[in-house]
Amino acid sequence: MELWLIERHTDRLSLNVKVEKTVYREKTRYQDLAIVDTYEFGRALILDGVIQTTERDEFIYHEMLAHVPLHVHTNPERVLVIGGGDGGTIREVLRHPTVKEAHLVEIDEAVVRACTTYMPSISCALSDPRVRVIIDDGVEFVKDKAGEYDAVLVDSTDPSGPSLGLFNVEFYSNVARVLRDGGVFAAQTEQPFFEPDLVRRIFHMISQAFPVARPYLATIPTYSSWSWCFTFASKGEHAENVMPTRCTGLRYYSREVHLASFALPPFMHHLFEQDVATG
Amino acid sequence: MELWLIERHTDRLSLNVKVEKTVYREKTRYQDLAIVDTYEFGRALILDGVIQTTERDEFIYHEMLAHVPLHVHTNPERVLVIGGGDGGTIREVLRHPTVKEAHLVEIDEAVVRACTTYMPSISCALSDPRVRVIIDDGVEFVKDKAGEYDAVLVDSTDPSGPSLGLFNVEFYSNVARVLRDGGVFAAQTEQPFFEPDLVRRIFHMISQAFPVARPYLATIPTYSSWSWCFTFASKGEHAENVMPTRCTGLRYYSREVHLASFALPPFMHHLFEQDVATG
Repeated sequence: MELWLIERHTDRLSLNVKVEKTVYREKTRYQDLAIVDTYEFGRALILDGVIQTTERDEFIYHEMLAHVPLHVHTNPERVLVIGGGDGGTIREVLRHPTVKEAHLVEIDEAVVRACTTYMPSISCALSDPRVRVIIDDGVEFVKDKAGEYDAVLVDSTDPSGPSLGLFNVEFYSNVARVLRDGGVFAAQTEQPFFEPDLVRRIFHMISQAFPVARPYLATIPTYSSWSWCFTFASKGEHAENVMPTRCTGLRYYSREVHLASFALPPFMHHLFEQDVATG
Repeated sequence: MELWLIERHTDRLSLNVKVEKTVYREKTRYQDLAIVDTYEFGRALILDGVIQTTERDEFIYHEMLAHVPLHVHTNPERVLVIGGGDGGTIREVLRHPTVKEAHLVEIDEAVVRACTTYMPSISCALSDPRVRVIIDDGVEFVKDKAGEYDAVLVDSTDPSGPSLGLFNVEFYSNVARVLRDGGVFAAQTEQPFFEPDLVRRIFHMISQAFPVARPYLATIPTYSSWSWCFTFASKGEHAENVMPTRCTGLRYYSREVHLASFALPPFMHHLFEQDVATG
């Protein structure tokens, strides 16, 4: 028997990944969770049929979500990650020796549990004494707080199901308020080649909540056949004011890659033109 | 009936593209040529089962192959394209108002003929009076010439069949000799994420023939799920000495994208480390 995971980028385009076996499957309170062993990418976390992360290429996504904003901050000490129950973003956050506390707010406890058991190379940092894992809805978590974090990173699934409320002006405004002075923000903000309207809408919402908002790109093999869009935002810090790299063990991120990731090809400019801040 | 084109990146990973119909098919002297209409990417040229170019994303590949080297040259007048029978690279070359003559050397006359008939948006420039189409083996064409071109661009299929001789130190040395003083070179040099050893071998060969050789990246949806590698080379001109953009109508290339394309993530450095010139 040959098993292939079919990851539909659109209904006319898919990435097909040969699968060795299903390791774990659970219908959680929020989503259909599967962990499978693939031949090309090693072990993979699948939520509602969509590849979230794989052992082979997760470093690209997690490094770019964490290190771009954190290297714009002069001294990030308290960091909040919303989503990201696999632990990969937290692992990257902890590479910054300045970080004293990292809070992970994940809505689905089953993701944390399954990744802790089955994907230790990604979840390994969740047991670090600097980390607090909070099972809660990120939308609610930021509602009643202000000035608590140096960085907020949103590591969500696509905007549907449990993640829908994380793509919302009110949420972004709450995140802005939760940041201390000099605070920075980044989020995964979807696929600009195949979903330009979605990317434009998300960017517009973030731009309404932050005076500085800048899209940046990274290419991740299991994400959609083209570069993925992230958005950096802040209350004033500029995306290109990069601190010297303060982490070791990085495989994708560097100062050069940081700066290069903000160079958008001209065919994409219109998605961000009216809103793009001067950061 | 649903038709799907299965583009195998590896034997464990494929990109599957839904096809409306086959427009043209020919077993040429050199390869199996097909032109198909896809739903996601428009019309596509397929050689020996591998997607070569599609109407929707060809601009990325052709702009990056042509404009990176040509914008390093102060005044490119005579340009040689080897391969590229679809005409897309020549079309980009002719955007440079400095160019007086562009020669296309394509081994397979059937590619030129089929693309002229069925892919006019890509092949349109082949009838320009500045263009000469020469049906010949590029390997032979450069053997007995010296100091004739300001730029040589190698727009080949993967290194097998008719393209094998284009991935070879002797060929690259002949190309270097064919360049005038100040001449520049670029080639498509395969897929670094899934085929790192191949990319390393090709880069090593180019580095033996040119004092300056620099890899650069661009992400093309139908090419392999990660960024594609190109190589810039010259007898002394440095890849980052970019002229002001002298072309109109560009959708992917810009000065910023040019510079960003040379920023390689750290996990790839080792592929080019021993050989990388200081260009």
